[in-house]
Amino acid sequence: MSASATDPTAISSRVYNFSAGPAAMPVSVLKELQEELLCLPGAGASLMELSHRGQVFTDILHGAENSIRSLYGISDDYAVLFLQGGAALQFSMIPANLIRGNDKTAQYIVTGSWGKKAIGEAKKEGNIESIYDAKESNFDHVPSPGDYKVRDDAAYLYYCSNETIQGVQFAQAPSCPTSVPLVCDASSDLLSRPLDINKYGIIYACAQKNAGPAGVTVVIIRRDLLDHAPANLPGYMTYKNHADGDSMWNTPPTFAVWALGKVARWLTDDIGGLAAMQAVNEQKAKLVYEVIDANSNFYKGHAKPDCRSKMNVTFNLPNDELLGRFVKEAASQDLASLKGHRSVGGIRASIYNAMPLEGAEALASFMKDFASKNG
Amino acid sequence: MSASATDPTAISSRVYNFSAGPAAMPVSVLKELQEELLCLPGAGASLMELSHRGQVFTDILHGAENSIRSLYGISDDYAVLFLQGGAALQFSMIPANLIRGNDKTAQYIVTGSWGKKAIGEAKKEGNIESIYDAKESNFDHVPSPGDYKVRDDAAYLYYCSNETIQGVQFAQAPSCPTSVPLVCDASSDLLSRPLDINKYGIIYACAQKNAGPAGVTVVIIRRDLLDHAPANLPGYMTYKNHADGDSMWNTPPTFAVWALGKVARWLTDDIGGLAAMQAVNEQKAKLVYEVIDANSNFYKGHAKPDCRSKMNVTFNLPNDELLGRFVKEAASQDLASLKGHRSVGGIRASIYNAMPLEGAEALASFMKDFASKNG
Repeated sequence: MSASATDPTAISSRVYNFSAGPAAMPVSVLKELQEELLCLPGAGASLMELSHRGQVFTDILHGAENSIRSLYGISDDYAVLFLQGGAALQFSMIPANLIRGNDKTAQYIVTGSWGKKAIGEAKKEGNIESIYDAKESNFDHVPSPGDYKVRDDAAYLYYCSNETIQGVQFAQAPSCPTSVPLVCDASSDLLSRPLDINKYGIIYACAQKNAGPAGVTVVIIRRDLLDHAPANLPGYMTYKNHADGDSMWNTPPTFAVWALGKVARWLTDDIGGLAAMQAVNEQKAKLVYEVIDANSNFYKGHAKPDCRSKMNVTFNLPNDELLGRFVKEAASQDLASLKGHRSVGGIRASIYNAMPLEGAEALASFMKDFASKNG
Repeated sequence: MSASATDPTAISSRVYNFSAGPAAMPVSVLKELQEELLCLPGAGASLMELSHRGQVFTDILHGAENSIRSLYGISDDYAVLFLQGGAALQFSMIPANLIRGNDKTAQYIVTGSWGKKAIGEAKKEGNIESIYDAKESNFDHVPSPGDYKVRDDAAYLYYCSNETIQGVQFAQAPSCPTSVPLVCDASSDLLSRPLDINKYGIIYACAQKNAGPAGVTVVIIRRDLLDHAPANLPGYMTYKNHADGDSMWNTPPTFAVWALGKVARWLTDDIGGLAAMQAVNEQKAKLVYEVIDANSNFYKGHAKPDCRSKMNVTFNLPNDELLGRFVKEAASQDLASLKGHRSVGGIRASIYNAMPLEGAEALASFMKDFASKNG
């Protein structure tokens, strides 16, 4: 493809896309997918046309798994699975595998819209206790360890590490007894920073924030947790089936796994790993939050400063008229998809891994100008 | 992209791909996906990077739905859903929505490996009766209406219209009382021929045979069946959630839906609809089956002639040595992925919609030569 100004499919037609998910992907990954889309070298067909049981795809799947394993140093005590159904299906699969049909209690910390959905599904499956719920402050913070108490005999402790709608993020995992498996919805910050996976029983992420296109969900699960599922659980919902079948118990979403593997390799080879990615992500977030803080009579951040998300910057403007103009003028400068979720209002700038530093700089610069002209 | 002999990603490097699924896709669709992959015209980003709630993607999803509705003339009495989890999750969702928690009985006709898996999952959910099982003849046929009896009060009658592993296909839907919803796994023949959708309660297909890439499943469901689900069913498994949410109750697999929409448009605009597609598919199947019948001392078809699949042609050779040579020599002539499933053995040539007539001609010609040289 040649990049010409008149070709609407060219790279020159791309904008800075602050969408909350599906979200921006690395351009180099998109280019590789594009080049190989019609015919994967050596395969004689598109990746989409190849049997998932053949060597070409199984190598791709194992390559994606190994990239994730090596980024986090994940041991063989864990299975790394590629599933369908998004976080929504995980909301049910986790309690269905761990507490359906037994008398254990799972505990939940709720710090935003995704945690709220997760606990709603979990209550259908067994005994659930909410041990912290930030709804009374409209989900503007995450708790400190002293704010909640985890039972030593809990089936698991569940939390969402980054709430995309409210823009709050746990800087550290919650405090949790070693007897209790910690379960984390990391849909919007897995792959954005280093983590000690050994702290977790299950940590999972739908791909469409930092890991690739919608349609595949990465589930990292400690193998001892595979044996708790009731026998009559639907086969697709049973983690053990997917672990035993090497994520090919049924046909996996092959294109999405292929793309995810390329994103993981980009993170390793082009970015230099998770610590390097975290440094860039912190720099991007700092640029935007500094403008909010320097113009605090104009921009109102939603999250309490020590709970701010590095992934989703949420803030409001003095009134709806200014909000509308902000979105419109930003779009005219190729800063797209900045409108916040209706439940919080205002602006949400999602600055996941694939948003380049230049995008955050352009947004910060626009915000400064807009405040000085309208403040 | 320029098609040069030295470019391994060029169209000239493509082979005839007889994979059973994921399977061949129309080249014109792959080319469109490729051209628009980096930047969807007017969107400033790849389709993969766009919010599913935005106008661009919702138009694409509705376009895909409308193409399927118009190909089959589907009325508003039916919802057309795009789900994740493949046929495997449908095996559970169907009984979970229709018989979990009630005392009704669902009946199953089992004519191959997929029906067998489906009834296995269904038995976890409630009362199930197998009213026909072809396993004793190694699934080489489908029953005639006189071979089974459907109860008037059955919750539903389930069958798989085309068994990909054994290569048997129902020419007509089974006989079923009007009081009983007919449920069909049409994963491997939906979109390959005209059907009267009004005969069905639910008819569904994973995309990776005739409809697009793996990762999306089309479910066509009569709306009155949306109200039977128990209240505590996992949200993702509840058809009503997806119908009420316009297939966006959670994030859909946006790339796969995009590709599926393009395949449906190809079927309409390039092929001329389902009757035209059926005519081509019958012509392709006839070419291959005629070689089998003309060389019946050499090639042994698996399916009884009146139950032969138009999608998957299954046959064996006189011995394993010849079978191995057949696969190898075919591959050397760019006829790929012909090895049959281990449970049936022999050869399986999958000739779904996107396999061009020329591919079936090339296979038939190779088979003639091979038989005359080795017979």
